[in-house]
Amino acid sequence: MYDFAASLFPVCRSITGNGLRETLRAIGARIPLQIHEVPSGTPVFDWVVPKEWNIRDAYIADEQGRRLVDFRDSNLQVVNYSIPIHARMSYAELKPHLHTIPEHPEWIPYRTSYYKEDWGFCLTHEDSEKLDAHEQYDVYIDSSLEDGALTYGECYLPGQTESEVLISSHCCHPSLANDNLSAMSVATFLADELSKHDLRYSYRFVFAPGTIGAITWLARNREAAQRIRHGLVLSGIGNADRFHYKKSRRGNGEIDCAAAHVLRHLPQAGNCVEFSPYGYDERQYCSPGFNLPVGCLMRSVWGTFPEYHTSADNLDFIHAAQLAEAWRVCLSIFDVLENNCTYRNLNPYCEPQLGRRDLYGSMDGNHSITEEINARLWVLNFSDGSHSLLDIAERSGIAFPVIQEAAYLLLRKQLLVAVCDAGCRYRPDVSEAALAFNTTLTSCECFTSNKSCHK
Amino acid sequence: MYDFAASLFPVCRSITGNGLRETLRAIGARIPLQIHEVPSGTPVFDWVVPKEWNIRDAYIADEQGRRLVDFRDSNLQVVNYSIPIHARMSYAELKPHLHTIPEHPEWIPYRTSYYKEDWGFCLTHEDSEKLDAHEQYDVYIDSSLEDGALTYGECYLPGQTESEVLISSHCCHPSLANDNLSAMSVATFLADELSKHDLRYSYRFVFAPGTIGAITWLARNREAAQRIRHGLVLSGIGNADRFHYKKSRRGNGEIDCAAAHVLRHLPQAGNCVEFSPYGYDERQYCSPGFNLPVGCLMRSVWGTFPEYHTSADNLDFIHAAQLAEAWRVCLSIFDVLENNCTYRNLNPYCEPQLGRRDLYGSMDGNHSITEEINARLWVLNFSDGSHSLLDIAERSGIAFPVIQEAAYLLLRKQLLVAVCDAGCRYRPDVSEAALAFNTTLTSCECFTSNKSCHK
Amino acid sequence: MYDFAASLFPVCRSITGNGLRETLRAIGARIPLQIHEVPSGTPVFDWVVPKEWNIRDAYIADEQGRRLVDFRDSNLQVVNYSIPIHARMSYAELKPHLHTIPEHPEWIPYRTSYYKEDWGFCLTHEDSEKLDAHEQYDVYIDSSLEDGALTYGECYLPGQTESEVLISSHCCHPSLANDNLSAMSVATFLADELSKHDLRYSYRFVFAPGTIGAITWLARNREAAQRIRHGLVLSGIGNADRFHYKKSRRGNGEIDCAAAHVLRHLPQAGNCVEFSPYGYDERQYCSPGFNLPVGCLMRSVWGTFPEYHTSADNLDFIHAAQLAEAWRVCLSIFDVLENNCTYRNLNPYCEPQLGRRDLYGSMDGNHSITEEINARLWVLNFSDGSHSLLDIAERSGIAFPVIQEAAYLLLRKQLLVAVCDAGCRYRPDVSEAALAFNTTLTSCECFTSNKSCHK
Repeated sequence: MYDFAASLFPVCRSITGNGLRETLRAIGARIPLQIHEVPSGTPVFDWVVPKEWNIRDAYIADEQGRRLVDFRDSNLQVVNYSIPIHARMSYAELKPHLHTIPEHPEWIPYRTSYYKEDWGFCLTHEDSEKLDAHEQYDVYIDSSLEDGALTYGECYLPGQTESEVLISSHCCHPSLANDNLSAMSVATFLADELSKHDLRYSYRFVFAPGTIGAITWLARNREAAQRIRHGLVLSGIGNADRFHYKKSRRGNGEIDCAAAHVLRHLPQAGNCVEFSPYGYDERQYCSPGFNLPVGCLMRSVWGTFPEYHTSADNLDFIHAAQLAEAWRVCLSIFDVLENNCTYRNLNPYCEPQLGRRDLYGSMDGNHSITEEINARLWVLNFSDGSHSLLDIAERSGIAFPVIQEAAYLLLRKQLLVAVCDAGCRYRPDVSEAALAFNTTLTSCECFTSNKSCHK
Repeated sequence: MYDFAASLFPVCRSITGNGLRETLRAIGARIPLQIHEVPSGTPVFDWVVPKEWNIRDAYIADEQGRRLVDFRDSNLQVVNYSIPIHARMSYAELKPHLHTIPEHPEWIPYRTSYYKEDWGFCLTHEDSEKLDAHEQYDVYIDSSLEDGALTYGECYLPGQTESEVLISSHCCHPSLANDNLSAMSVATFLADELSKHDLRYSYRFVFAPGTIGAITWLARNREAAQRIRHGLVLSGIGNADRFHYKKSRRGNGEIDCAAAHVLRHLPQAGNCVEFSPYGYDERQYCSPGFNLPVGCLMRSVWGTFPEYHTSADNLDFIHAAQLAEAWRVCLSIFDVLENNCTYRNLNPYCEPQLGRRDLYGSMDGNHSITEEINARLWVLNFSDGSHSLLDIAERSGIAFPVIQEAAYLLLRKQLLVAVCDAGCRYRPDVSEAALAFNTTLTSCECFTSNKSCHK
Repeated sequence: MYDFAASLFPVCRSITGNGLRETLRAIGARIPLQIHEVPSGTPVFDWVVPKEWNIRDAYIADEQGRRLVDFRDSNLQVVNYSIPIHARMSYAELKPHLHTIPEHPEWIPYRTSYYKEDWGFCLTHEDSEKLDAHEQYDVYIDSSLEDGALTYGECYLPGQTESEVLISSHCCHPSLANDNLSAMSVATFLADELSKHDLRYSYRFVFAPGTIGAITWLARNREAAQRIRHGLVLSGIGNADRFHYKKSRRGNGEIDCAAAHVLRHLPQAGNCVEFSPYGYDERQYCSPGFNLPVGCLMRSVWGTFPEYHTSADNLDFIHAAQLAEAWRVCLSIFDVLENNCTYRNLNPYCEPQLGRRDLYGSMDGNHSITEEINARLWVLNFSDGSHSLLDIAERSGIAFPVIQEAAYLLLRKQLLVAVCDAGCRYRPDVSEAALAFNTTLTSCECFTSNKSCHK
């Protein structure tokens, strides 16, 4: 995943254009990706698909022709969506078009001007201080802003039901590693992994430019959006911080509970934050007309760390191990969604005799029972048709995979029956371990037990 | 306000009588006040309007005729509602009628005996120790307790709707400054200020003696009481403590939320306390038959500070700046009530494009957006017909005036429509600043941001 | 109570057999107890009543015939429900049948094997280390496991209504004092005390072996179980720890609130713990098919203290004073259940004039009112037909007996009327003190005031 992200790092992406296309093609080489081109000028709700932007070269040169600021060094050096310009101008004329970060004089900021035709350069504060106020500068941006198309990609993995899990990651940022090559890469490898499994839900991965891409997808898929039962926006999941999950607007969706459960049981527990209408594309999925149960999984929260939207968000800022953990955490969340089901205890009057079914120890009087036996008692007691396995995991403080395995064992012993409208993964001819969507990945590495929101 | 309180300080008020009448006349000289006289003996629910009490003079004199305790020094020196007496008696006979505060030997307590015919003197503990157990004393109270009337005043300010905001302050206490000249003076100046504004609600100020006055008003206004949509009892708001708001019996009325919001955003955050059936006249307004959404705004809570009901609650105990702040806090609460409304976002599918409406910055990629822009996103996202502006302010942690200004700007851009049954203050021909009932007063001085009950 | 527990300590109880019978006979000598015998083989829900077990003697002897482990020393030395054996065997053959506690080398563990035919000995770790690996041992257990019966006892005390309060304590453990002679003894003396009172509810005391006894009772009383309105499992209430109350599965039953209230007001406040499906017989009463409002009152929670299920849970581990306090705490909980009722204030508009009914002080202006007067205001304000006295006690922070006495005083003054479906204890011809089910016991010794779950 790190290598895939690294290979896409140099590409100059934007909300439209060839860099975006090239990126989607690279993703499409790994997973089945349907690529859509939406013509400039297409109305999408209150917005219009903008003109397509492409850039070939850009620089600021001194009178000697030396390139002082050079797009070839970093595509962050040009304000994204800059209109073309070729002019000689004084420092005073140039200065309003220069962007720096005085607090981090060695970093280049990332700036855009999508919806106001403008041009500009981003540079380190150090370089900006070398410019001479009395000199004339050659300013050159070889870009085009013309009718074209907005490009996005979709990977759809059909499952047993038409109900969908949406995974959405924005792919409009140029050479920024955490935001959002980390998520694009993890999402690509998640799709690849999921394609190898029998799935209860259908999964839809959307790779689209931020804001306008999500709006375009929603405008073209108003009916399909109603099939989204759970969703995750992925962004900035490759750096060294612990996980943060921003809840959906509803705040109590199954995805919210599943993500909170998985994060709580991580060795380094993650944090949940409440929904707010600023952020990534959950802004659109959670707009009041849609109000979809879509949350956002991040490590550091956008805007809260200094490297955000600067050249310091580079390939040193993300790590292969962090990407792998993010991939496992996402699979753990999907594992909960796939296996969460509601059951009814077929022996609801008193406990069934577990001992004669080899589900209980025989020599009694000990101080305690194992977590496995405890999980069976929890599942039996609360499987009354109104508590899902996730509810039981939360109430008991036991990690979901342990609860899930207990449920499958009790199903095998014909002590439970499923009352779940989305179907149940249990199959009498398949072992408990294999029934778990992702047991080996999740229970060993992601889950620690005895942590509950009730404690 | 301080001067007005000071001018009324020497008057000997009680739950009936000429001191009360004189006080109401002084208030009536500043605001339109309808004064009511309810004859003694009138049944009011479970009570009866008592006889009218008046007092001209009172003293305890020694055998040489020297006045040792003198009503002319302080009207607190006589137990309020003392029946007339003129007798020479021994110290032993006198002693049961003397009240002091041994813990504060220089202070005179305030005592009453409204519903049991009795007489007594209140004096400093120091003075009481100078009395000679072997001497005879002349005891004289020149009072009258006869059929008369209970007096109260009402100031009614009509607004666009008949729904009313009640402001009630007791005015039966004699020379006590904080309890309750502070509230009487602030209420008077509030009525004066409100009379200069276009009001959404009608406002009713009740100046009545404690307990029996509120009971009398309610007994004579059972129908009118049903029009009370929000209410505040004001008491003890002139001393140096921070604010305390005692919630209405309902606990979740709009007044409770509005007061809590304003107090939370004060530079020195105030405290909310739960309803209890002991206290001021909210006891009557919140009796179960009425259960009106009436809370109580105080600084120190009654009975919790040593000066309470003593001669130390004098003009040094209250301050002009504290009265002014109380007046502003009340106006801030009224500002919330006046402007709180529920809207529906007319572009509920995805965000509307704020940039093209000059409601969003154009150069993007920065770390953060301004609170003003954030407020617009909050109002748009949660204006789904079921969240009021106050709900949004609470959930976002943004101060109400910022949320309100965002809403009026979005209304002007035709992005919202009001769905509020009490009407909306927005007028397309009036500026946002002017639409705010009290913007200049509240946003600058009372509100600090980023404080929410959700944090 | 301590002496009664001590007298039963030596008896070798089990889930069936003569030790259990002897114990129930001793209880039946103190309270009216109906003793039931349920034949082995009787199906009870998913279980079957097991064969009856009796034991006369058991030992491990060395080649010289010296008894090294001897049932006559302690009935814990044999694994409960051991099948008969008489054999000479090597240490290697014997060893898998020996149970010790290495961490507490002087204690004998308590072990059972009810549902798997097996045999074994429990001994101190010290004694086990004296056994010689090269020696042969005489192993003898003179027990029988044959068709017989499971025995349990019921004491039913009829009250004014058929709705029942269930008190259940397991009585299958042999020489263990806290678990559960403490609860058996307290329950016996509770039944004796209750039989002397006029009761609103009917009370049913069940003395039965753990798990299978409760299951058997429920299987034979499915209709009767529906009459259980409140229930308490009692266990381990004689040691020196503070009280713990494990909530019923519902979590918000009246019994849960009543027990929490009483524990909170104890001089050493007790703790409430959430329901879990492992524990004592509340496991059966709270199985989802029954879901009865039955909690569990303990001191130390099972399994959390080292003496649990060892020979250290002996007569030194429990104390007469602790048993007496447990008895009082249970009566305090019953007192709340007996007297909890909902009323309607007959003067709901404003406060009624308490002064003229001698329910309020006459000389006013003091800092505070007494808790007794405050309780009257709380009862009047919240007696709106939807708040019970227990609700009012919880909301006000005032101890239940004070609230209850206020209610009875207000009933006497004809200010309240009962709207409680379970009837009200108030009788106009009986004094407030006598109306309280247990005032003298509870208010003085168990309750401290001003503690509320709202604080």
